[in-house]
Amino acid sequence: MDLLSKIRNVPDFPKPGIQFKDITTLLQDVEAYNHVIAKVADRYRDAGLTKVVGIESRGFIFGAALAHALGIGFIPVRKEGKLPSDRISRSYELEYGQATIELHIDALGKEDRVVIIDDLLATGGTLQAAAELVSHTGATVHEIWVLIELAFIPGREKLKGYTIHAEIVVDGE
Amino acid sequence: MDLLSKIRNVPDFPKPGIQFKDITTLLQDVEAYNHVIAKVADRYRDAGLTKVVGIESRGFIFGAALAHALGIGFIPVRKEGKLPSDRISRSYELEYGQATIELHIDALGKEDRVVIIDDLLATGGTLQAAAELVSHTGATVHEIWVLIELAFIPGREKLKGYTIHAEIVVDGE
Repeated sequence: MDLLSKIRNVPDFPKPGIQFKDITTLLQDVEAYNHVIAKVADRYRDAGLTKVVGIESRGFIFGAALAHALGIGFIPVRKEGKLPSDRISRSYELEYGQATIELHIDALGKEDRVVIIDDLLATGGTLQAAAELVSHTGATVHEIWVLIELAFIPGREKLKGYTIHAEIVVDGE
Repeated sequence: MDLLSKIRNVPDFPKPGIQFKDITTLLQDVEAYNHVIAKVADRYRDAGLTKVVGIESRGFIFGAALAHALGIGFIPVRKEGKLPSDRISRSYELEYGQATIELHIDALGKEDRVVIIDDLLATGGTLQAAAELVSHTGATVHEIWVLIELAFIPGREKLKGYTIHAEIVVDGE
């Protein structure tokens, strides 16, 4: 299946010059959505995973469906201030300013082996922070999975030491 | 299964006096998480649904897993400014100020029959706005599903005309 054809390209969103990759068209296409989840589940079925970690918000969509498909639990990495219990935080640089994401400290431990799920790998800042949070708990990051990698942005360089799988690689803007 | 026992109660979050219902403990409990998704899928398997609508962010978790379990597409209702294509918006009152949620205008049509999914029914403002957005497209709201209803807050009154199902009803603060 040509998954890239299921993604809507929205020019100049959220600002001029950006070609936004809109995944909602894939999500509402039942064949494409189920194809993606089946493919990811096949990829990780024998990996000995104990949990799926999804990054707010679009990582929740693919991550929760994957956790269900694999029959394992789901762990959310959330934006600052959203998780109510004891948590660890990592901040990372954005183009302007910074962002912080958090993980409940008791969500994972050294007995856990996880895949970290997000929709997009661009600059890699969010995924780097998420991988650091997971590693801090003692859990093993089996792989980082994204639906789309923007390969013209050097996001992978921030994620050295982690295996990354992108379902769709976009080479040019 | 006593699902309420799987929910962590966090006192005084996000502010003094609030007993926050933390669903992350349920999500990371594989038996509880799969039990909930199986139960919801059983509830809607023969309802003729065409799509599952999930409300950002925690509605994405249950909604995406349910869409996968039913083999139908997933439609996100998002916070303001997140959806990139042509969209419709509804604002609603919060305790202080207001919030706005949005739906892509081409995400649903009059041929669609959906369930709207969120984690919590409290004041009902978000769910009312989401139901209005879905109805505006011409689609039919088969039911509104929430994991937890805080029955000591009159949220249902805002949702007259819609059927609501709560998996867990919390009667007292």
